[in-house]
Amino acid sequence: MNITIVGAGNVATHLALALRQKNYTISAIYSRTAASAQTLAKTIGAIATTNLDQLPDTPIYIYCLKDDALPTVVSQVTSLHSQSLHLHTSGSIGLEIFPNACKRCGVLYPLQTFSKQRPVDFAHIPCFVEGRDVQSQQEIKALAKSISSDVNILNSEGRRALHLAAVFACNFVNRCYAIGEYVLREKAGVAFEKLLPLIDETATKVHHLSPREAQTGPAIRYDRRVIEAHLGMLAFKPLWQALYRNLTDDIHNDKLRP
Amino acid sequence: MNITIVGAGNVATHLALALRQKNYTISAIYSRTAASAQTLAKTIGAIATTNLDQLPDTPIYIYCLKDDALPTVVSQVTSLHSQSLHLHTSGSIGLEIFPNACKRCGVLYPLQTFSKQRPVDFAHIPCFVEGRDVQSQQEIKALAKSISSDVNILNSEGRRALHLAAVFACNFVNRCYAIGEYVLREKAGVAFEKLLPLIDETATKVHHLSPREAQTGPAIRYDRRVIEAHLGMLAFKPLWQALYRNLTDDIHNDKLRP
Repeated sequence: MNITIVGAGNVATHLALALRQKNYTISAIYSRTAASAQTLAKTIGAIATTNLDQLPDTPIYIYCLKDDALPTVVSQVTSLHSQSLHLHTSGSIGLEIFPNACKRCGVLYPLQTFSKQRPVDFAHIPCFVEGRDVQSQQEIKALAKSISSDVNILNSEGRRALHLAAVFACNFVNRCYAIGEYVLREKAGVAFEKLLPLIDETATKVHHLSPREAQTGPAIRYDRRVIEAHLGMLAFKPLWQALYRNLTDDIHNDKLRP
Repeated sequence: MNITIVGAGNVATHLALALRQKNYTISAIYSRTAASAQTLAKTIGAIATTNLDQLPDTPIYIYCLKDDALPTVVSQVTSLHSQSLHLHTSGSIGLEIFPNACKRCGVLYPLQTFSKQRPVDFAHIPCFVEGRDVQSQQEIKALAKSISSDVNILNSEGRRALHLAAVFACNFVNRCYAIGEYVLREKAGVAFEKLLPLIDETATKVHHLSPREAQTGPAIRYDRRVIEAHLGMLAFKPLWQALYRNLTDDIHNDKLRP
C-alpha cells in the first residue's frame, strides 16, 4: 500500500518509520523546506518534494503539519486526489478541516511526544482514530492497528480534551523538569542527573497509585514555613513564583475537596 | 549499631526498612500517634513509643518529622542523649535546628518521593549529607554509603535549593498528572492509563536530552489557535487557566532567550 506523507517534522518522521517497518511504501514526502523533505525521504526511500502539485497519486495521504498550515494544504491536496483516503494527525483539529467534497477522510492521533533524536516504539503508543463515515473510520482503524496495539475510537471533541490533558502530563511536566534543572544548577551547583531517580519514580508511581494518592511534598502537607522559604528563593523570577503559588494552592485546595 | 528513628511517616518507614536490611538494629520508633509508631515498629522489630523521655539510649538518632515538629523534638532528645549522633532528613532545615550543645549532628537528605504503599530501592537514591564538624560528617557519610551508592556532600543552602528543584520535578509534575487525569476522564471519557506511555516517555527522554531540548507541544511552537482553544476549555477552572497561561508563557519566553 502506497502512502504520501505531507510533512517532515517529528510526527511525520516517526510515523513514516513505523509504517515503513510494517512494509507500507512511503511514496513521497512533502515539506515546505527542501532539506527536511530530503532528509526524511532519504531515510525511508521516498521521493522528496516542496511542491504540492507534484505529489504522486497514492491511496492514502497523511498530514503531519503544524495546525496553522493544515487548512490550505489539505484543501489543495484533497482536491487533486479526491478518491484517496486523507487523514491528519492533530489532537486539536476536527474533521471540519476536510472540505465537504472530501468523502474519505479522518484522523489518526498518536498520543506521544516525538523528538527526532529519540527512537520510539509505535506498538505501545495509544492511537485515537476518527473517520467521517463508517467506511473511512474502519480503514483508518486498520491502518492504525498495523502499527499500534492500542487503537481507540474517539471523536474530535474528546480528542481536543485528550490533547489538553497531554499538554499538562507531558509539555508542562517537561517544563517543570527544566525549572528544576535551572534551580539545581544555579542555586545548588548540582547536576540535573541527580534528579533522574526522583523523576523516574514520580512517573512510575502513577502506574500503581492515582496521581491524587501519589501526591507528596510541602504543598500537600501545607507546610507554610517551607512554602514561604521557597517563594523567597524564587524572588528572582516572578513567573516561577506565580507558578509555585498556583500549583501549591491547587494541590492544597484539592486535598480539602470531599 | 543501634538506631532510634524519631518519626513513623513515609521517610521514616523507607529509611528504617533500608537500614534494617543492612543489619542495623532499629531499637525504637517514636511517633506522636501510637498506631503509627506500633505499625512501623512491628514491621522492623523495634519498640514503639509516644513518649520522648522513654527513648532508649542509642548511638544514633534519626529525625524524620514534619519540619514544624522538628525544633521542640530535637531540642528535647538531644539534651537527653547528648553524646549520640543526631541527624535529620529534611531538605529545607539547616544545621541551626540543633542546639549548640549538640556537637555530633548533621543531615542525611534522600532525594526521593516516598509513599508507604510503594517499595523503593534505596541503593539508587541520591543522598545529600552534611555534618556540623568533619567527624560527624564522616560518620553520616559512612551511614549513608551503607544504604546508597550515590552519597554527596552538600551544605544547607544547597540542600534548600535541591529541595525546591525537587518540588518542581516531582510534586508539581505529579499535580500536572492529576490535572491531566481529570481533564481526560471528565472531558474525554478516557482512562488515565492511556496517558502512561506519554508520561513514561516524557520522563525517559530527559535521560538523553536536556529538558530544554526535549520540550514539545503548542507552547514551544507558540501555536496561538491551540493555546486559545485550550484556555477556553479551562474556563471552568480559573486556577488551571492561570497555570496554563503561565507555563505556556514560560516555555515561550525561554525559547526566545539567547
